[in-house]
Amino acid sequence: MNSEIENAVKLAKSVAEPLPENGHTDFEELLRDIFDRLVPHSTNDNSGGYLAYIPSGGLFHSILADFISLSLNRYVTMFMAAPGLAAIENQVVRWLCDIIGLPPEAGGVITSGGSIATITAIHAARTNQLTDRNLSQGTIYVSEQAHHCIEQGLVLCGFSPKNIRKIATDNDFRIRLSLIEKAIERDKTDGLHPFLLVASAGTTNTGAVDNILEIGKLAQKYNMWFHVDAAYGGFFMLTERGKSLMKGIEQADSVVLNPHKGMFLPYGIGALLVKNKNQLRKSFDFTGTYLPALPNEINSHVPEDIMHLSPELTREFRGFRIWLPLKMLGIKPFREQLDEKLNLAQWITEQLLQIPNIRIVAYPQLSILAFKLEPSGYDLSPKELDNLNIKLLDAINRRGNILLSPFRSTHNVDGEFAIRIAILSFRTTKQHLEQGISDIQNATSNLI
Amino acid sequence: MNSEIENAVKLAKSVAEPLPENGHTDFEELLRDIFDRLVPHSTNDNSGGYLAYIPSGGLFHSILADFISLSLNRYVTMFMAAPGLAAIENQVVRWLCDIIGLPPEAGGVITSGGSIATITAIHAARTNQLTDRNLSQGTIYVSEQAHHCIEQGLVLCGFSPKNIRKIATDNDFRIRLSLIEKAIERDKTDGLHPFLLVASAGTTNTGAVDNILEIGKLAQKYNMWFHVDAAYGGFFMLTERGKSLMKGIEQADSVVLNPHKGMFLPYGIGALLVKNKNQLRKSFDFTGTYLPALPNEINSHVPEDIMHLSPELTREFRGFRIWLPLKMLGIKPFREQLDEKLNLAQWITEQLLQIPNIRIVAYPQLSILAFKLEPSGYDLSPKELDNLNIKLLDAINRRGNILLSPFRSTHNVDGEFAIRIAILSFRTTKQHLEQGISDIQNATSNLI
Repeated sequence: MNSEIENAVKLAKSVAEPLPENGHTDFEELLRDIFDRLVPHSTNDNSGGYLAYIPSGGLFHSILADFISLSLNRYVTMFMAAPGLAAIENQVVRWLCDIIGLPPEAGGVITSGGSIATITAIHAARTNQLTDRNLSQGTIYVSEQAHHCIEQGLVLCGFSPKNIRKIATDNDFRIRLSLIEKAIERDKTDGLHPFLLVASAGTTNTGAVDNILEIGKLAQKYNMWFHVDAAYGGFFMLTERGKSLMKGIEQADSVVLNPHKGMFLPYGIGALLVKNKNQLRKSFDFTGTYLPALPNEINSHVPEDIMHLSPELTREFRGFRIWLPLKMLGIKPFREQLDEKLNLAQWITEQLLQIPNIRIVAYPQLSILAFKLEPSGYDLSPKELDNLNIKLLDAINRRGNILLSPFRSTHNVDGEFAIRIAILSFRTTKQHLEQGISDIQNATSNLI
Repeated sequence: MNSEIENAVKLAKSVAEPLPENGHTDFEELLRDIFDRLVPHSTNDNSGGYLAYIPSGGLFHSILADFISLSLNRYVTMFMAAPGLAAIENQVVRWLCDIIGLPPEAGGVITSGGSIATITAIHAARTNQLTDRNLSQGTIYVSEQAHHCIEQGLVLCGFSPKNIRKIATDNDFRIRLSLIEKAIERDKTDGLHPFLLVASAGTTNTGAVDNILEIGKLAQKYNMWFHVDAAYGGFFMLTERGKSLMKGIEQADSVVLNPHKGMFLPYGIGALLVKNKNQLRKSFDFTGTYLPALPNEINSHVPEDIMHLSPELTREFRGFRIWLPLKMLGIKPFREQLDEKLNLAQWITEQLLQIPNIRIVAYPQLSILAFKLEPSGYDLSPKELDNLNIKLLDAINRRGNILLSPFRSTHNVDGEFAIRIAILSFRTTKQHLEQGISDIQNATSNLI
């Protein structure tokens, strides 16, 4: 065990204790222990220098909203129990639909994150596309670069991994269109039932945006459900560059967004949008005898109960976490921030290109990129090259100014190691990246 | 439309507006509109008089915990990113396992609610019991009184409603053991694969607790996964009466708990416990190339990443919402509160029995009961009797002191209407129930 692991394990053990019979009388001491002893030994995802995985942001307005929401503790998933607050939930969904460009009949639900939103989308796709009889024949097409929550969600929804086609990507890590169509045709010939086609609007790996417009046409041609995973990229639809890159997303049957990414909110919030709300409603048509059924003449006047659009029945007034920041700040600063992130990603790429022996493995399509060190004049095996870059990543991160994360390509050398830079927090400014470039430069020259 | 619906729809419409470009400059006005205009027009689930559905409670200590958790915004689902906080999550799961009586090798995960916990349990059951090949042969056995999130979860997980056996219940609304075994035997004869047996530890309808010990033995006999839905009843394991009623729950393969019920926390929190943590780990064995795999020699020293025990990958530091109240208060007041709720349910039943023409439809096994008005000397049709009780429920609720909810039995007259009393909030005291009994008495004598 290295000392970092050793310390972590020691810290974890220090927390262990039997269920206390009586309360701790000194509340301040209790909180001081959390803040002074446990929290410092953790990665600060809120830092402007956090460029690993996909940054969150932790916008305070949303934290305040959650505090109010939990204090109110109203039952918003049933319209008549809290009509004004349920209307806020619905308003938030509508705003998100507007950002993506979905039609008036669209609907959706605010979830606890991207994975649950994805599972909900898969269930809606299946309910509207397959029957009990051909369920096991249903086949799904996703990029090999797609987020693994999609495969996990498919298996959870009862699909065999054998029915999931992971389609290879091109040099820019975009799904290869011709291979999708080939796979669909082959499966049809084999008596299978292609029903779900997934496009990535910004992969987690490199931020690659698939050719959404053309994939949508394919889905239409084969009468399949068209899902767009826009968990990371979706909010860039607020910018002109994002809109042009994600053209066709408004044709999607379902779209997953992650406000804890592109809206800089704290962790614990996702969203599913569905082009035709009725298709979502149809997928959650369950009820219990303990729930009051409203007479039909009333039902036709009030909005859907949110519990009938989601696997969650009881939950907190979650949409308020999106509503309050948007009301307090307006959408403008979000658009400006996202535009700035696009600029920063371009800027740092240019800077990286000026460092000797650095190769850009994935150019930024949005605000994620990947690079590696490939020193000329050394005859390094792929394994040695990987180890060099693992050392480089470690050397950069140890400086403590920026935090980058590893990337393993599925291209060229299989499993080639590179270093990701993901720029998304509203706290990340050019100053952080200038420091970052200086750290990368120094770490690089120390290594070769 | 009646005026209540009309007002609700008007209120909802008043919230509608286009996505604002700029922020609202007067934050106080913004919040005043929520608190003074929207919130008053909603059911106050936090009131001590709230005896409808299953009360929450909205314990403030947990709201404070959530505020801290979202402000920290740490990535607790990956151990090495926040070892001390991940350890708190694990500690909370261990405490819950202790309350239920699960062995040291048990594990689990804190979810956003009971439905997601149930879906996670179903997926774990399926992963450990079925293969790709016999998935569609898998059959499931639940009480006809079971919560509908179980059927919904099963369908979401890819099971046909045709494979779900809803077993009839006895006079006390407990699942009939002999019918379970008959159904299992019949399905086996038909070449199906019985794999999941569900017991309810406190139904939502009447609080009925199935014979958990005997159902567990059946599950063992047929080598099936044994799931206990203890969303409502589970925390009564803190009391002697609860322990005696739920004997055998410690043999369950999985247990769902809802801390927003029996721990009085605000909405938005559930828990899944699994007797053998490895079975849960095995069910979420997915990863992405963008996630760093720890070397095996390190992995063996650190606890499982929480993201590998759940469909959720990124989420907030949720366990803190349970940990902080337990640390600040100890478990003692929770036990005392739950004991008091059991007493109150007995007390109000005795009071109801003294009101002429009241029949107890479901006696309290824990803290839920159901009653109806059956006036002697009138020759009422079932439909007229239902209407009388619908009027009675309305008359009680309109007084505004207590809120009760409707119940439709599946016994005797099919769909017979009765009135539920669910006592669970720590804010509910004998004074509330005295007022309630007086309201029921008056409403009753006004009606007949």
